[in-house]
Parts: sequence; structure tokens; C-alpha cells
Amino acid sequence: MTDMDLSQALFAPRAVALIGASADPTKNNSRAQRLLQREGFAGRIIPVNPGRREVMGVPAFADIREVDGPVDHAFIMVPSAAVLAAIEGCCQIGVKVATIFSAGFAELGEEGSALQQKLVATARAGGLRLIGPNCLGLLSVPDRLPLTLNAAIEAETLQPGWLGLISQSGSMMGAIFSRAAARGLGFSRIVSVGNECDLGVGELAEFMVEDPATKALLLFLETFRDADRLAAAARRAHDLGKPVIAYKLGRSELGRQLALSHTGAMVGGDELANAFFRDHGILRVDTLEALVELPRLVLGHRPPRGRIAAALTATGGGAGMVVDRLGTLGDAVVGPPTEVRAALTGQGIEVSDAPLVDLPMGMSGPVRYSTVLKALVASDHCDAVVAVLGSTARLEPEAALAHITPAMPAPKPIAVFAAPQADETLRLMGEHGIAAFRTPEACADSVHAFLNWRAPRSHDGIAAPGEADAAGRLLAEAGATSLNEVQACAVFAALGIEPPGSAIVTAPEQVGDIAGPVAVKLLSPDILHKTDAGMVRLNVEGGAAIRATVTELLVVARDHFPKARVDGVLVAPMHRGLQEVILGYRWDPEVGPIVMLGIGGVMAELKRSYSVRLAPVDLEEARSMIAELPELRLIQGFRGLPKGDVDALARAVRAISLLATLKDRPVQDAEINPLIIRAEGKGAVAVDGLLTLR
Amino acid sequence: MTDMDLSQALFAPRAVALIGASADPTKNNSRAQRLLQREGFAGRIIPVNPGRREVMGVPAFADIREVDGPVDHAFIMVPSAAVLAAIEGCCQIGVKVATIFSAGFAELGEEGSALQQKLVATARAGGLRLIGPNCLGLLSVPDRLPLTLNAAIEAETLQPGWLGLISQSGSMMGAIFSRAAARGLGFSRIVSVGNECDLGVGELAEFMVEDPATKALLLFLETFRDADRLAAAARRAHDLGKPVIAYKLGRSELGRQLALSHTGAMVGGDELANAFFRDHGILRVDTLEALVELPRLVLGHRPPRGRIAAALTATGGGAGMVVDRLGTLGDAVVGPPTEVRAALTGQGIEVSDAPLVDLPMGMSGPVRYSTVLKALVASDHCDAVVAVLGSTARLEPEAALAHITPAMPAPKPIAVFAAPQADETLRLMGEHGIAAFRTPEACADSVHAFLNWRAPRSHDGIAAPGEADAAGRLLAEAGATSLNEVQACAVFAALGIEPPGSAIVTAPEQVGDIAGPVAVKLLSPDILHKTDAGMVRLNVEGGAAIRATVTELLVVARDHFPKARVDGVLVAPMHRGLQEVILGYRWDPEVGPIVMLGIGGVMAELKRSYSVRLAPVDLEEARSMIAELPELRLIQGFRGLPKGDVDALARAVRAISLLATLKDRPVQDAEINPLIIRAEGKGAVAVDGLLTLR
Repeated sequence: MTDMDLSQALFAPRAVALIGASADPTKNNSRAQRLLQREGFAGRIIPVNPGRREVMGVPAFADIREVDGPVDHAFIMVPSAAVLAAIEGCCQIGVKVATIFSAGFAELGEEGSALQQKLVATARAGGLRLIGPNCLGLLSVPDRLPLTLNAAIEAETLQPGWLGLISQSGSMMGAIFSRAAARGLGFSRIVSVGNECDLGVGELAEFMVEDPATKALLLFLETFRDADRLAAAARRAHDLGKPVIAYKLGRSELGRQLALSHTGAMVGGDELANAFFRDHGILRVDTLEALVELPRLVLGHRPPRGRIAAALTATGGGAGMVVDRLGTLGDAVVGPPTEVRAALTGQGIEVSDAPLVDLPMGMSGPVRYSTVLKALVASDHCDAVVAVLGSTARLEPEAALAHITPAMPAPKPIAVFAAPQADETLRLMGEHGIAAFRTPEACADSVHAFLNWRAPRSHDGIAAPGEADAAGRLLAEAGATSLNEVQACAVFAALGIEPPGSAIVTAPEQVGDIAGPVAVKLLSPDILHKTDAGMVRLNVEGGAAIRATVTELLVVARDHFPKARVDGVLVAPMHRGLQEVILGYRWDPEVGPIVMLGIGGVMAELKRSYSVRLAPVDLEEARSMIAELPELRLIQGFRGLPKGDVDALARAVRAISLLATLKDRPVQDAEINPLIIRAEGKGAVAVDGLLTLR
Repeated sequence: MTDMDLSQALFAPRAVALIGASADPTKNNSRAQRLLQREGFAGRIIPVNPGRREVMGVPAFADIREVDGPVDHAFIMVPSAAVLAAIEGCCQIGVKVATIFSAGFAELGEEGSALQQKLVATARAGGLRLIGPNCLGLLSVPDRLPLTLNAAIEAETLQPGWLGLISQSGSMMGAIFSRAAARGLGFSRIVSVGNECDLGVGELAEFMVEDPATKALLLFLETFRDADRLAAAARRAHDLGKPVIAYKLGRSELGRQLALSHTGAMVGGDELANAFFRDHGILRVDTLEALVELPRLVLGHRPPRGRIAAALTATGGGAGMVVDRLGTLGDAVVGPPTEVRAALTGQGIEVSDAPLVDLPMGMSGPVRYSTVLKALVASDHCDAVVAVLGSTARLEPEAALAHITPAMPAPKPIAVFAAPQADETLRLMGEHGIAAFRTPEACADSVHAFLNWRAPRSHDGIAAPGEADAAGRLLAEAGATSLNEVQACAVFAALGIEPPGSAIVTAPEQVGDIAGPVAVKLLSPDILHKTDAGMVRLNVEGGAAIRATVTELLVVARDHFPKARVDGVLVAPMHRGLQEVILGYRWDPEVGPIVMLGIGGVMAELKRSYSVRLAPVDLEEARSMIAELPELRLIQGFRGLPKGDVDALARAVRAISLLATLKDRPVQDAEINPLIIRAEGKGAVAVDGLLTLR
């Protein structure tokens, strides 16, 4: 089946079978057919119900296999136990897509998962693609296809629009639809994806992005199940100039519990999502209303150069709420530069250089206001403009509109916030394609999302050709899924990170001509807490003492842990430097490979301090991670303290991230703890490390 | 004038003079009279305008002094230059209150401030109270008194209600009014306070709190100008069971700039506001809509015992947004305990112990839902309940209402969030006194505000009788506004904080029989950077070496700084301990006396870490400050590290905070830096300190 065929079967099927259709209007199962008929779906509607010959005036079939003609899309509403048979039937008659409303699968645990896997296997064998199960269906407005049991949709007029929506929450499909409708925004296509057993958010996003009717794509997410495809879709959307806007649950531990996200217990749950969105050019909103208010703000615009907003207002308090919140979000609001002020003076308008251009009562008529607005929009000093309206937005919607329209269309986004209740003004602004916001919070959230929007970051070409090959060979030869510190540090060394210079000996006479100080540590996979067991000795100095310690550890191990396998004794130099950090790489089950830089030591356990990115990263991105950790300013010339080799740290961050460039990404986890950063020009050394393969 | 007289003149005047009235409907100045006439104000309306004999059918006077009868309240709308004359006229004929709309005073800087001070002096001499200047007036709905030029108000029907509002932003008066009206909420009284030259937020709050028509008081704040009276009003409101709810700008540095807050550059700008609100039992909201949505949630309730919410929903995604946000705000959402689940099982309803009780499609009819809701509301495990509704709220408002009403009235707050657009449901809920929220953000913000609401903390009785007297005597005797380290530490010692044990000598032979190690430091007000000047020597050991160092410093000072006044040489023991902290006290111009505990050292400059409270604090509050600093867990038994004398630290925090109990609060700033915390049972010592008087 080609993508085109699949897309047609999904959104513009010629015939739709409703398996489990009901004629009882009090039953949920009746809703899809009622909606299809109400909206005048042009294709064939085929109710399937063993107990009925007819449903709502349409001939019904007892079994999908009995249908007298081709079926593109089946909507399955039967109890979970009957779904497999329905899938088999669909496969037999060559249905292309089945959307499964029925619940009772992976969301219930192991038994449900097994049943769900059977559905997938059966469908795959029969050439059938699946949406769901446990989803509320889909909506293709241009095709008059409301193939959904979402009750809220029933209250709406299906006005066509340019927004696409993919939701991991079924009920939010209707919630977002209704909230957008109230703001005069319609949709092209909406899909509730449920358990995503086959067609997931990413693959569906690929279809939506290519859809000419869809100019912006909204995502309501609880987790990532096919991050790679979603990333690809987002990058394609960027190329096509279609913004992708995500609202994602799981900002808090509590939220991640609810969303059953896999990252629950791991470092950086929500930071990983942020890294994913940012790297792939997806705008993330933090408030629900921004999900429907942001699209108008960014439509037709590209990611900004800088992160600066300008602000103009007819009401100090109203604008204060937006600007104050932008401040808490870390964004800058900057007043007009001298040349802008001079140009305005030339037009008889005096404004100050304060961050907020305040045109108070009597000074804020549409002509004056829009003149200033045009000047701000045209000025290079800012990337977006916040325009706040007061009483006018309540009393005189047409006048309110006239404050803004002279500046439209604008080369940068204008975010209008109406301080009073101003439904009619919001409606009018929407009709004119102006982004108008109901609350200061959604306004600031949206402006913040825009200012932090970046073009997708390229993950290609970061490793030089062959640069990671040696590390890859070492991993292929490792012969175990868990590498010890020596093996792990050898892999890191192959990537360019200085190894600790340690040696493994099995007898004291193997200790070379070294004076120390060294750390001496027994190597045994069977003795776990080695420090507690006395199997680690630090700061051992002098050849004789080092040899004696090796002997002692071997003897003690033999006497006290007679059954433990002993792989030898590690003799490692004691390294000193200015700062210790933890450097990590992980293949995350949700977002894929990531690289993490954190501060080591006891305080790190009390106050988490780390920076995370999708891997790989280049040196510039590595430096931006270093800049996020205030502790590392201590080794960057702060208050005359000695400078550390921050360049070497950046190189090490990049180097470990190159594990993401290995074929098939074999590494599950890699960690250097600590990496010791020496003085400027003296490098950084991996003192200890570990690495596990997938 | 009694409070009763003033209150009547403010809100129920028998006659109102409109100084600067206009009959031109396109002029702002015409609005007040037009509104008074439209609303049927029962008192006399007296236009004052030298150019008119009549305004809108009402006889006008050229001058306020010519009015033929008593005037309770004057509304002044003339240009700033004419205001003083108007005030003089008001005084001459015995007007009780003047509300000054005119701008051009303190908000413009020094010159305007001087003019404003003249108004105040004139009014005070003439027994006239003032609101404003630079305000939009006031509104007393029961008295049909819309004495305002706020344009947004003109669009509204003035339906009476139980909310009071005091706003430092004029335009937000109308914005909040209109937003509340859209949710079916009316007001009793609203005052726009402008520059607060006389009657400020606090004093007006005192009137509002006593007003029987006002059941809850809203504050829109940019700064604090009379925090003491506001505190008193809030405490009185608590006694009367009237919630006080504040939205305050200035959460960010940017916001504080806009609001011209005095705390801009100081530590803890917004934390001070939080400390103020919390200590005085004021609920603070972070979102605009919560300001009008929270009152229904808390009306009739008292501050909660705990900080735990329960959550019930018919839509997982919708509730996830609220719960996730509560998680980011630090609140707990806890599932039903065993006994609640057992009781529900007895009624045929099975629910899990997950934090979110999810009654999915088909399980969420009104009877089942309200049964669970009643059980959660009745359960002791939670302090508030979040109840989320899905499609029903869009499709069937009456049914949505029936999900909630069986649980009303409830012994604890129920916050209803409707996931879809659901205007009619929100309206119905409002009519039934149910707190229903339009956005998940305002819902979580409101529940968070409630969960963090505390009864006012008593500041009385923290100092034992006479406990701070000795410190007060030392301050009275100080004879300077800035105390040196020895004098400052003596004051701290008088409050019970161990002094460094240093001595001031003027000759080496005065050094007693001490072995050190000590720090030796020249005392001179004229040599500033003493360390850079070589005037501080650390770790000097042995009597001979100490005496030699004293001699050397005196000689070097004489030779190199011949003009500097030298007060002697400080010889101070070198103290050691487990942790250094900074302990501070300050009389803040906005919120009054505060106490601050922070972490010292270089990292503190990179990552601010401190806790702040209004002073004084008792030992329990001091311990809660200590608990806010993760760094201090290092000396509280973390990972087997040695324990510090945290009790001594708590005693020191309380002790320095007692400076707030001194008569007239003479201290401007006091700081101990560092306070060294020794091992458990060994106390804490003030190594260095300073103190300045107001």
C-alpha cells in the first residue's frame, strides 16, 4: 500500500465499515454513524452488527466479511474479546486501515498487551494498518468524516480549518476541538491515537505534515512511542514552513506517573522532552489555551534570530502581567532604541526607552497606537511584539481591531492581549488572522515558545568520517554487555577522552616502575560494595607500598571471599584537578540517545544540577551545556579563581555523545564519574567509567 | 471624622461633586456623571465646571465653594495644575473625601511628588481625606455609585455581588470587573487607589473587610505602600472568615522594574511578598483568572490542615493537566485510602489507589461520579478535591451540574475543571456557588493557593519579656548610625548569639595571654579594602607573633596611610566549624522587618540560596527556614557526614529576628557573615557582623 493509498484510506475512505454499530441513540456506539450522516459523508457507510439488518436507515451486515464491495477503513467498536475476529475479517476482505475504539489492551497491563500484540501480528500479516486500540477515532473535516465516538465533537459544527491535531488523550480531542472552535479556529484532520499499536504519533504526523489542508500541527502528548518518526516529521514540517506545537504532560514526577511515561525514575524526565522538542524545531507550550492561540502567532513565521520581545500597551497593569511573566520565563523585553524613538518623535509621538511602551488613556487612539506598533514591528531590536489593549477591547471591538490591523501583515509575530473580558474583540482579531490572547499567561507562554523556537539542529556530520570507528570496534569485541572500568575507559579513550592510565595486575610483580600516589582496587564482579569491603585503597605511594597493597587485596579477597571471581587488581593514578563532573550517555527508550553533563559530589545529590541534550552534540552545543551549570563558572575565571580546561571538557562532552553515531547505537548507558578537569590547557581525565550495551 | 462617617462618604455619599465635569460624551470626564445617572445614584450629583450652568440636565456650579449644600465626596478631574485649588475649595466647604482622577503627580518624579505632598498637606489641614491622585475612581454597587472614569465599566451591568476589589492599577479595575461579570460574579465595592497619597490599600482594606456586603476581598497589587495596615486588615479579615486574595506583579526583576517597586535591587524581591502574604493569611494567585475563580473555591472555608489534594475525573487527559501542574507547584495529589475504596466497593464502585481516580466513559454518570466525589470530600486524607469533567460539560450542562451538586455544600473545597469549552456549564456552576475553572492552569493555581493558605502567624510573644532590652540599650548608646564589627557583635551577643571573642588593642602590649591562631585586622574607617591593603592577617599563632603583627599593622598604617584615622587593631580568634552561613535582618521599606538565612561562600554568588521570613520568628519558623536550604542537609546527618549544631543555628536565627521587637524598630540592616556552625552541641559563633540604624 502506498502512502497515498494509506492517506486516502485514513482520511478520505470511499467506504467505511462501522463494526459494532448501534441504532440506539443513548449508546456511544451509535455516535459515529449519526455524525457521519449529519455531516453528509460522501462515501459509503456500512454498519456491521450481527443482530441488525439495518441501522439508521442504512443496510447493515452481520459480519464484515459479508460486505458487498470494497471497504477502505473499518471503525471497530466491539468488546475487546471480539476485536481479533474483526481484524481477521478486515484482513480477509482487504480493508486498508482499522481504527480500534475498543479498550482492554496494553493499557490494562500484561494480559492486554499480549492480546494487543496478536492484533498487530494478524493485521501485519493481512496488510492491514491499525489506529488505537483504546482511541476515540479520527476526524477528517474536508472529507466530512467524523469517525469518532468523542461526545464533545457532537456539539460542534465541523467548520474546516488549517489546524491538524494528534492526541494521545482521547477526550482531549474534543476538548481542544471545542476550545479552538470557540476562537473561530477549525481543523483539517484530528486523530486520537490511543495505544499506538501500529500507526503512532510520528507516522501520523508524517501524513499530516504533507497534507495541503494542514498548515500547523498540534500535538497533545503524554509520552513518546515513535520519537524517531516524530522527529523526521517535525523536520519535514520545518522545511515546509508548517509549525508543530506540542503540549506534553509529565512536567512533574506526579504527571509522569499519570502518563505512565517510561522516564519516570530517570534523570531529566521533562528536560529530555524539552531537548527533543528543541532539537527538532517543535514549539512547546505550557498552557492549554496557548495550544489553540499560538498557531495564529507563528503561522507564516520562522524561528527567530534572537530572544527579545518589545511591548506596547494602553494599560500598564494589563501589560505588566504579560511582561512580568515573560521575565519569570527568562525572556527579555527591551524598550525601543534611539532611532525608533527619534522616528516616532518625527511623527509627533514621544515614547521613553522603558521596556514597556505605555500609551496611557487619551494617548492610545488607533492611529497613534498602530503607528508605534508598526515602528516596533519594523525595528531590528526585537523578535516579537506584545500589544496590550485595555477598555477599548471591551467597549469598541472595531476600534480595538483598528489598533492592530495597520501593522498587519507583519514581518514578526504580534501577540495581542486584551486585559478585560473581550470576546467580540478576540473573535474579530481571529477573523483577521491576528493572534489574540484571553489570558496574560497564555500570551506570555506563547511569546516565550516563539522566542525559544529554533530551527531543527542537525545531528549529521558531527562525527568526522571514521572518528568513532575505533570505539565501535572495541564495543563489538567486548564480548559482554557490561564493560568494566578499564574497558569502558578504553572506549572513551578511543573517542578522544584521556584515560586514567590505570593497569590491571594479577600479581604484585606486574606493578611497573611507578611511584604513585595511586588508587588500588580489587576487580571482582562478585564483590559489590568494594569500598565497604575494604577493597579500595586510595593515595598509596611508593613502589613497595603499591606492591604490598596489591598482595594484601589479593590475599584478603581469597580469605574473605573465597567464592568470588577475582579478575585482578586495578592500579590507577590519583588524578587531581580543579573540578569533578559526571558525563553520561544513554539510549533513552522515549527520545533516543542523550548526553548528560552533571556536577559530582555530595551537593549534587541534594541539589540536582545537570544539563542534557539529544546526542550527538557538536562543540558549540557542548559549550551551551557547560554554560547551563552555574557551578562551572567557578573554573571560568570567576573572582580570580584558577581557570579550568573548559575546552577539554567541551571536547569530552562531544566525544561521549559520538556514541550516538555508532551503527545501530549499541550502547545503552555510558558514564564517566568523575571526569576531572585540570587547569587551563592541561586537559580533562576520565578517572572511572562504566558502559553497558543494549 | 469617624470611620463610619468616612466609610459613608467614600461609598454612600449623600452628595457627590464632579469637579471638571463635562457634557461632551466623547470626553472621558463625562463618563462619571453619565454612569451615575444611568445607574440611578440616589444622592445628589453636583457638576462643577466654570464654563457651564448645567451638565446633562443637572445644574452645574462654577466653583465647588459655590455649592448650595453639603458635599460628602468630590471627584476631581481637572488638570494637575488646578487640583490644589480644587482641594482647597473642598476643604473650605467641609467635603469629607476627594477622589483625584487627575494625573501628573508622584508618578512623574520629583516635581510631581512635591506637588502631591502639597495636596496632602492641604487636605490634612482641612480635614479632607484623599484617594489617588492618578486613579480611576471607585465603585460602590449597593449604593449605585459608579464614581469612575474606567471605560470598561461602562460596558457592564452593575450587578451587586460579594466581592470587594482594591487595585493599584486603574485599568485592571475594569478588566477584573468585566472578567468577573462574565462568570456571573458581582462586586460590592471597588477602589482604584492610584498613587495612594493618603488613603492606601491597607486602610481601604480595613473598610472593605468590615463591610457586610463584602465576603471576600481581591487585591491587584504592584507594590506595598502601607503594609502594616494591610497586614492588620488581613488579620481582621481572617477573624471574620473573609478570604483576602492577592495578585501581585513583580515576580520577575523585569516586572519589579515596571511596577517601580522599591525592592528591585534587593535580595528576595518576590520572596518578601510571599512571606508577607503567607504570614498574614492572604492567598496569593499567580494567574489572572484565578483572581475571579478562587473566591468561590475558598468562600466559607478556613486554611487547611495539610497540603494534599484528591482528584476525580471523567477524562484522563483533562485531569492530567491539572494534576501535572499541581506536581510542578509542589503539591501532593493522593489516591483514596483503603477504607474509602472499601466503602465505595460496598456501593458497587471499584476505584484504584492511584493519585487520580479515573471514571472513564460509561462509568462516569452523575450518580456514580457524585458518589465518589462525596466519599473523597468526606475523607480525612485530603484537604481539597479536584473534580474534572469531560464532554458532558460541553454537551449536557445540567448533567454536568448533577455530577457535583450532590456533594455540595462540602466541608472542603471542590475545584471543578471542565476540559472542553463549556461556558454554559461554568455559568450554571457559578449560579450554584460551585468553583468551576476555565483553564487547568487557573484551577491548579487556585488549588495550590488554597493548599498553601495558612492562618496569620502571630508575631507577638516571640521575645520573652525584657529579652531584647539589653540589645536595645546598646543600640541607644551606640552614638553612630553604623556600628563596627565589635559593636555589632556585642548587640548580637546581647540577643544570645555567641560573639567572636575578639579584642581591640592599640598597642602590642595590650594583647593578652593568647596563643592563637587569631586574625589580626586594622580598624580604620578610612581604609576601605583592608585585605587588599594588607591590613588583614589570618592564622597568626603564638603570643610573640601576634604582638609583632599588631605592631607591624600600626606601623604600616602610619607610614602608608598617614591621614587615616586608626581606631586600633582587632585581634580575633580563628573559628572553625562545619558550615558557614549568612544571617541577616533588614527593615524593608515595603514589607517591614525581615530575617534572612543564606549560604555563604563563592557558590552562593553563583546560585542564590536563601530563605526569608517576616521578623520576628520563633524557633519553629527558624527551623522551617533551615529546612528550605538543601545545603544545610549536609550538617543534618546526610550520608554519615558529621552533624552540626542546627539547634544553635535556629536559636541564632530567632535571636537576630528579635531586632524587630525593639521599640520603633531602630535597625535598618544587620548582618552576621559568617555565622560558623560547629558540631552538634558545640554552638554557633558570629565571626563578623555589621549593623546600621535607620
